[in-house]
Amino acid sequence: MALAQKLLVDIHTHVYLPRYAALLRARSAVPRILSAPAGERLLILDHEPSGGRPVGPQYWDREEKIGFMDRHGIDVSVVSSANPWLDFLQPDDAQRLATELNDDLEAYCAQSPSLSGGMKRLYGFGLLPLVPGVPIPALLESVDQISKLPHLKGVILGTRGIGAGLDDPSLSPLWGALSSANLVAFLHPHYGVGDAWGPRDNGHVLPLALGFPFETTAAATRLILSGALDAHPTLKILLAHAGGALPQLSSRLASCIDHDPVVASRLAHDARWYLGKLHFDAVAYGPEELGFVSDVVARSAQFGDKKTAGFGYTVDRKLGSRNMLFGTDHPFFPPLSNTDKWRSVVENLQAIDAVSGWGDAEKDGVRGGNALALFGLA
Amino acid sequence: MALAQKLLVDIHTHVYLPRYAALLRARSAVPRILSAPAGERLLILDHEPSGGRPVGPQYWDREEKIGFMDRHGIDVSVVSSANPWLDFLQPDDAQRLATELNDDLEAYCAQSPSLSGGMKRLYGFGLLPLVPGVPIPALLESVDQISKLPHLKGVILGTRGIGAGLDDPSLSPLWGALSSANLVAFLHPHYGVGDAWGPRDNGHVLPLALGFPFETTAAATRLILSGALDAHPTLKILLAHAGGALPQLSSRLASCIDHDPVVASRLAHDARWYLGKLHFDAVAYGPEELGFVSDVVARSAQFGDKKTAGFGYTVDRKLGSRNMLFGTDHPFFPPLSNTDKWRSVVENLQAIDAVSGWGDAEKDGVRGGNALALFGLA
Repeated sequence: MALAQKLLVDIHTHVYLPRYAALLRARSAVPRILSAPAGERLLILDHEPSGGRPVGPQYWDREEKIGFMDRHGIDVSVVSSANPWLDFLQPDDAQRLATELNDDLEAYCAQSPSLSGGMKRLYGFGLLPLVPGVPIPALLESVDQISKLPHLKGVILGTRGIGAGLDDPSLSPLWGALSSANLVAFLHPHYGVGDAWGPRDNGHVLPLALGFPFETTAAATRLILSGALDAHPTLKILLAHAGGALPQLSSRLASCIDHDPVVASRLAHDARWYLGKLHFDAVAYGPEELGFVSDVVARSAQFGDKKTAGFGYTVDRKLGSRNMLFGTDHPFFPPLSNTDKWRSVVENLQAIDAVSGWGDAEKDGVRGGNALALFGLA
Repeated sequence: MALAQKLLVDIHTHVYLPRYAALLRARSAVPRILSAPAGERLLILDHEPSGGRPVGPQYWDREEKIGFMDRHGIDVSVVSSANPWLDFLQPDDAQRLATELNDDLEAYCAQSPSLSGGMKRLYGFGLLPLVPGVPIPALLESVDQISKLPHLKGVILGTRGIGAGLDDPSLSPLWGALSSANLVAFLHPHYGVGDAWGPRDNGHVLPLALGFPFETTAAATRLILSGALDAHPTLKILLAHAGGALPQLSSRLASCIDHDPVVASRLAHDARWYLGKLHFDAVAYGPEELGFVSDVVARSAQFGDKKTAGFGYTVDRKLGSRNMLFGTDHPFFPPLSNTDKWRSVVENLQAIDAVSGWGDAEKDGVRGGNALALFGLA
């Protein structure tokens, strides 16, 4: 256990399983993988700048994933399918493919190397057939399947649910089933929010740097406003990209709710309280961002009551670190030139190491111990 | 000067001048002021929940503004027209009205009471006729008019420029003129970003708590990416609502830029450096948010070079406070019941007082001293 807490665990790392990549190759519309003279290219957005991005074995080969982990000292990865998941499929196809891909991912993990002590190097987040028109019982069957696959420890979710978002009341049984099965729901963006990017060519920068976190922020906020976190107090939600903008906008959110009695009446707590119920990956690329997320988690306990405490409290930044977990976003954000280590990964590790107010215990926790606890691996 | 630095100065406080309110009353489309049995109602968004918000003299009467200031101990206010400004007008009407409203605002301030020492209690941000089709020279004439009105110290801007956003290269002369005139450009949202709010009725909460700050974030980011802050190094930009999500997404933005050589090549500095060039109102409703904004301003100096410093620096949170300024957002966010003081204002003052790591000098600066310096009032 002392040793286990020193492991480096990557909880934000993606794969297009071979079955999924084959599906993308067979498609004539986005999302698709296109064959091109200089190699295959991936198109996942409707208006992909510069004809999509190069795609190769780092997206589907387990050996490539393990090689990447070895190069960066990552002991264990909790792998998830990359967006857009099954969003573009009809319900029948989505259900069939979810089942097949969950079995594929189980095999991908089960056949991975073991660490001394028996822990595998790969675990996974399963897929649910979250598309418009799918019956809720089909979602619950998927949760049941995943809960019985020993190396799958959660599910990855987009933000659209079955078409009406994650605040759709008909999803309540899903949150209940995920809670009961003790599966972590990893909430991840794909569509972005808005088209406020203007005519200037800024490549992927604006939709990725802003649109993605905006989407996560809106989805998580809607989930809070729906009361789902009150109704399902043991539900484990993990937010991509350190929760996007939710931490920085959470006091403004609380103030806007305070000024709307109808919305306020639906919630048991001040908006800031719910941030302590959430988990955040540490994919934020800067130590000040991580320290701030840690602060908003730590302060959450002060906001159980809707009356503000007048801010007469002391925040112990160390406490908030428990809800934060290292991630890489591999195989996205690859280096521009051939380097041994990926800059995006190195920066996220350096950022964890540089958070002011975190000691070794907190840093070790964010690097791995918190993930072992959240996913029940240790 | 020692006394002046103890003043409480509100730099985010709005007015619909009587001439503007009359215009809104005469309109049959949004934005408009509607007469209703229980009093006038303001509709400024296309799909205003619950038939608009009650509107009354607190929106246009100077005596109401002074009364609000007196109740909250605010010595000086730098008043700006509220959104949507002149956005909905044709160029000729926008130009004429900008000129008239700037003269009106000058009179509104000039005829306000004085503090002992001669400082007025009211100063203002002027309006520019920023609408599609307006000739650039007309914008420069407006800047010239404002620069000659002694109580106007800046301009308030929406995010759309003359239709193509604030990163529109044709606006470069405007940034130059504002810099030369030493006028502060207050960047404020109106439209929000996205419609990711779903079918559930959450009142104004999502567009106000999230959409507004998303819009400011996108506009400020586009301004950074356009190189305007490199080309106009003395341009003074003030961001509403503590910069929205820009501080929390700034390291992600830097990482996304690093991974796009074309965009990176256009900028002289790492994205985080530009946050130190910006000013932020302290309208964030929480001390952790304010402390974090202070951190990202303080760290900015470490990112003048595009090579990351590996985060091997120490952040002096005190330094960042110099770019932050108290605001109320009056007359928006009114209390739900009749109270002496507005909760939204009290919370913003309490938040400033509770920022960990700020001493009295920093808190006094944020409450007023920084505004006196930025607007050249002391």
